[in-house]
Amino acid sequence: MAIVRSRKVSLAPVLSISIPLALSLAWQPFVNGTQFPQVYASLAFSILAFVATLALIPRFSRAFVKIGLRGRDLLKKSEDDVPECMGLVAALVYICALVCFIPVPFSAAFISDPLTSRVNPEYAPHRQLAVYLAAILSVMIATILGLLDDLFDIRWRHKLPIPLVASVPLLLSYYAEQGNTHVVLPKPLAGWFGDFIDLGFFYYVYMAMLSTFTTNSINILAGINGVEVAQTIVISASIILNDLLFLPWPFTLKLGRIEISGFFGKALAQERHLFSLYFMMPLLAVSLGFAYHNKYPARAFPGDTLCYFSGMAFAVVAILGHFSKTLLLFFVPQAFNFILSAPQLFGLVPCPRHRLPKLRPDGYLDPSTAEIENPSGLTIFVLQVLNFFGLAKVKFSSDKRRGTTTNLTLLNFVLNKTGPIKESTLTNYVIVIQILSSAAGFAVRYGLAGLLYDGDRR
Amino acid sequence: MAIVRSRKVSLAPVLSISIPLALSLAWQPFVNGTQFPQVYASLAFSILAFVATLALIPRFSRAFVKIGLRGRDLLKKSEDDVPECMGLVAALVYICALVCFIPVPFSAAFISDPLTSRVNPEYAPHRQLAVYLAAILSVMIATILGLLDDLFDIRWRHKLPIPLVASVPLLLSYYAEQGNTHVVLPKPLAGWFGDFIDLGFFYYVYMAMLSTFTTNSINILAGINGVEVAQTIVISASIILNDLLFLPWPFTLKLGRIEISGFFGKALAQERHLFSLYFMMPLLAVSLGFAYHNKYPARAFPGDTLCYFSGMAFAVVAILGHFSKTLLLFFVPQAFNFILSAPQLFGLVPCPRHRLPKLRPDGYLDPSTAEIENPSGLTIFVLQVLNFFGLAKVKFSSDKRRGTTTNLTLLNFVLNKTGPIKESTLTNYVIVIQILSSAAGFAVRYGLAGLLYDGDRR
Repeated sequence: MAIVRSRKVSLAPVLSISIPLALSLAWQPFVNGTQFPQVYASLAFSILAFVATLALIPRFSRAFVKIGLRGRDLLKKSEDDVPECMGLVAALVYICALVCFIPVPFSAAFISDPLTSRVNPEYAPHRQLAVYLAAILSVMIATILGLLDDLFDIRWRHKLPIPLVASVPLLLSYYAEQGNTHVVLPKPLAGWFGDFIDLGFFYYVYMAMLSTFTTNSINILAGINGVEVAQTIVISASIILNDLLFLPWPFTLKLGRIEISGFFGKALAQERHLFSLYFMMPLLAVSLGFAYHNKYPARAFPGDTLCYFSGMAFAVVAILGHFSKTLLLFFVPQAFNFILSAPQLFGLVPCPRHRLPKLRPDGYLDPSTAEIENPSGLTIFVLQVLNFFGLAKVKFSSDKRRGTTTNLTLLNFVLNKTGPIKESTLTNYVIVIQILSSAAGFAVRYGLAGLLYDGDRR
Repeated sequence: MAIVRSRKVSLAPVLSISIPLALSLAWQPFVNGTQFPQVYASLAFSILAFVATLALIPRFSRAFVKIGLRGRDLLKKSEDDVPECMGLVAALVYICALVCFIPVPFSAAFISDPLTSRVNPEYAPHRQLAVYLAAILSVMIATILGLLDDLFDIRWRHKLPIPLVASVPLLLSYYAEQGNTHVVLPKPLAGWFGDFIDLGFFYYVYMAMLSTFTTNSINILAGINGVEVAQTIVISASIILNDLLFLPWPFTLKLGRIEISGFFGKALAQERHLFSLYFMMPLLAVSLGFAYHNKYPARAFPGDTLCYFSGMAFAVVAILGHFSKTLLLFFVPQAFNFILSAPQLFGLVPCPRHRLPKLRPDGYLDPSTAEIENPSGLTIFVLQVLNFFGLAKVKFSSDKRRGTTTNLTLLNFVLNKTGPIKESTLTNYVIVIQILSSAAGFAVRYGLAGLLYDGDRR
């Protein structure tokens, strides 16, 4: 059996910082009082989840390799076995954190009768509890399906609908609760159809499509060390930032306690974004813990499991938080990669087994290519368009019977533009693109959206 | 690679009976009207789950064997590979059925305002939905932990607490809802302490222990073809029968529509037992489907997954349905097996790797034995007591320094009593014991319990 390397974690300093930090955060509300003690608790859980992921991954590396969950790093000269599907560890820590968090927001919100210490059932936030549990259930199903995918190596075309299955509990709970299926219309359309339109059944189709997109789009922007988890980190951090914008910040107090009087849906929006924080903070935490072991040179591979559970978590918060359009703004690089890939995914252009970049003898990366034989007129046309816009480098023989094209992915596109770079540099470029995209997303959401939608949309 | 055999399923007749049956059941309430349309729907889902399990297991056999989920049948001369952990297929079908069932009981119960078609949120049964989702979540965690156990072959002592982890969502949801932690006291004690006693925290400990017991006790009454799933079948059928006793049956109508006026907790008991039916009917269904492939000679092994998810399902319905004492009556053979096994499980008597019966050359089974060397005084005493009561066959050398005992399991106990029998006969004996135990359980529950507890306890 080949060697299995793992990255060392010095637990002593990590624990000596993180445990006191988590405890002090969890105690903070009791000392100073705060409006959202549950956010502090969630942060404390997230810190522990980060440490758990960091510590557990190297401990399980050998066990994973032993049962066949292993892969070779195609962009390294080394023949070491790298444990595959280690996203499972992150997923289980994540689910554990979410499950242990159950009592925090829901029992604090119960109002007990001080005389009898009995709960008044009228005030019990069962609705939120049901939604929270349905969300965990969807993430769990995505995890188990991801694991099955990694174990049985399900074929690409068969696994596209997997996120649909995982979104069923979410959608059915949404339906069982007769969730809102109205969408706000942009101003120009509102004059014609009214401010809202009820999409009804199509809203469910939209939600199912969203979860399919978030899951698969991360899964196909993959192939170099750290790139999947880097997307998860930037996107979850962006969502957290967006959620924080919806919380009532102390600066309102500085205006002589003048409360910004409740604009439509404020309390509701706040509750939704709290909910989103409960899911995104631990996700960011386990992603960071995982990234330590997945960064160049990778000592653990994410497997499909990581993309599945994190993609599902994104879909869940966007659906239940009603900010799916904002979420899509953070997925622009993934959308770009998906659209660019479409000709290969849907068979217009030949798609080799792997489309990841090619390792040069000097350790730098070149874009990989696909061979084209007897292309149809449409294939030639599409590739020439892509070539014209610099999205691929395409070469045809003079009779157009044969040709090559760089594989149609964001990674190869970046390599086309930059020339040969190192794998770690390529990952960093993707991170920069993702961050710029999020920044642009915020600008669109809070700048341009005012032109299309009414109201204070902070 | 060794041969993988699977049992043929003639889908044509199965489908041509089951599909119309399921559809007609689901439509029944719309034609005739009935008090519990959701029970018909659950039955329809169960029939489909049965067919799905029946059909899917042989289709996945090779894939399971291929990734190493395989075992040899130690009580057969054949060297064929038998796919292991196939309980996973039953578990996934079960979860699928439970998830798809979500909208049935919960949206029908919503009361819409006929003018606006908007739901009055006051009437929304969110509490039940949250509980239902928490229950599925616990079953799912048990499934994923069972799968991990089968994959990584977790050591016996390490896996005992696994059901505790799986019961966390259940317990935390119970806590978040400030569930009832009171127990009814038997009459003799009621005079001293009152009719009820609030166990508080200890009620949670009790619930966690219950799930650990139901899960592990099935898992250790194992080793011969079909025996694990036979327990699941008899116990789930017993629970279903018990649940049916709590539904208001049409015979009340024959008494001139005199309604048996509401005795304490009637409506609540009815709701709880409906909930139990939703979980037990599909469990019985997938167990029957699985049993077809697991029966002698087994073409699929259950793995720990089957025991984990079904044991968890039993714990869930008993906890949320508040009939844990009744459940324990159905677990008497498992309790007997556990208590009998205790000296081996806890190290008093040597415990070999396998304790399953021994195959004789003529194809019949003998009890297996454990070797004892330099036993302590306590070990000798315990074994002599067991020997005296006929629970084990123990032999010591004259100086008591060496000895042998039949392994301390129900299976070996039966073999001690019956002499060499065939494997399939032994399974049938266990089934008979389980059925007799359930019958005795009903007698105790509805006969003797009246002596200890007040009230109409139907």
